[in-house]
Amino acid sequence: MDEQITVTKFEPVKKQGLIVVITGNGKGKTTSALGMALRGCGHEMKTTVVQFMKGDLYSGEWDGVRLLAPLVKLYHTGKGFCGIEGNPYPHPEHRRNAQEAIELAGEIIRSGDCDILILDEINNSLQLKLVDLEQVKEIIAIRPPRMHLILTGRDAHPDIICLADTVSEIREIKHAYRNDIEPQPGIDF
Amino acid sequence: MDEQITVTKFEPVKKQGLIVVITGNGKGKTTSALGMALRGCGHEMKTTVVQFMKGDLYSGEWDGVRLLAPLVKLYHTGKGFCGIEGNPYPHPEHRRNAQEAIELAGEIIRSGDCDILILDEINNSLQLKLVDLEQVKEIIAIRPPRMHLILTGRDAHPDIICLADTVSEIREIKHAYRNDIEPQPGIDF
Repeated sequence: MDEQITVTKFEPVKKQGLIVVITGNGKGKTTSALGMALRGCGHEMKTTVVQFMKGDLYSGEWDGVRLLAPLVKLYHTGKGFCGIEGNPYPHPEHRRNAQEAIELAGEIIRSGDCDILILDEINNSLQLKLVDLEQVKEIIAIRPPRMHLILTGRDAHPDIICLADTVSEIREIKHAYRNDIEPQPGIDF
Repeated sequence: MDEQITVTKFEPVKKQGLIVVITGNGKGKTTSALGMALRGCGHEMKTTVVQFMKGDLYSGEWDGVRLLAPLVKLYHTGKGFCGIEGNPYPHPEHRRNAQEAIELAGEIIRSGDCDILILDEINNSLQLKLVDLEQVKEIIAIRPPRMHLILTGRDAHPDIICLADTVSEIREIKHAYRNDIEPQPGIDF
């Protein structure tokens, strides 16, 4: 259908790294960040994803991103969501995991070895006191000026929203699980 | 960091196709749909993306999805956003393009040849009268029961929201372009 299309490439005069926050209670935050990793591949940009509080429950992106290697790398860390029903791990254990994850994020930033760094579920990790506000601010402060930083998760801190360039809030209007529909592969995990 | 993790795979008792609507004025709608395509790959699910009103301006996902072939296919159709400043094409031409795109969507659905069908920017195509409400309802009605259908774009029609299982509204809290920052590759296109 696009046989007559001549593709035009837009090039910004000034390339600069953006701080993007994706927050809110609706579905699509992690998914949207993954979409940026995929989009980045089209520009031959390297993306690293560090997932906080991910636990051991399989999520399709773990294998999906392998198809994008070596441009996209993903580290999943943690022991699932802290504080939700059924999660047996105490707060200090979640905090220890999140501290390892933010240390990893710092190493990645200092190495400068990616164009897009996604810190998935870092907003709620901060809200749950698994990482500290000063640590997240430090990550933002030391990032190379052309590296994009994507911070996802509900309950984004107002100070982080203030520091960000682009902030989207994803609101739940409806969710299938409220009609007792189980999570579905590809869509929910 | 995940050396001690034993991966658990959740399998829903009942697999069923969901209607997912991603709407709102914020950044992340198309990106979120692309993330589902990537996540689907981890489950070996096939995704087809039909982009409406896309035009000739290069977007990173066009090449990004090639890395996911043959699991993910993408068709970009149209001549850019209808009705926005600087778009020179008349409404009938946009409508003709969108009609071809929805016909293609119908063919894909009837062939049953994917697990996830993404109709990107179809919500605003409907709002702009490039496709008709009955046509979108027909797409929803004839879809095989296990095929997921993702409809993105701002201004989703209330009837479509009503038919959907999961609806997210992405609200713009901030956007870099309001501070005169140009669109950046990987993030904005």
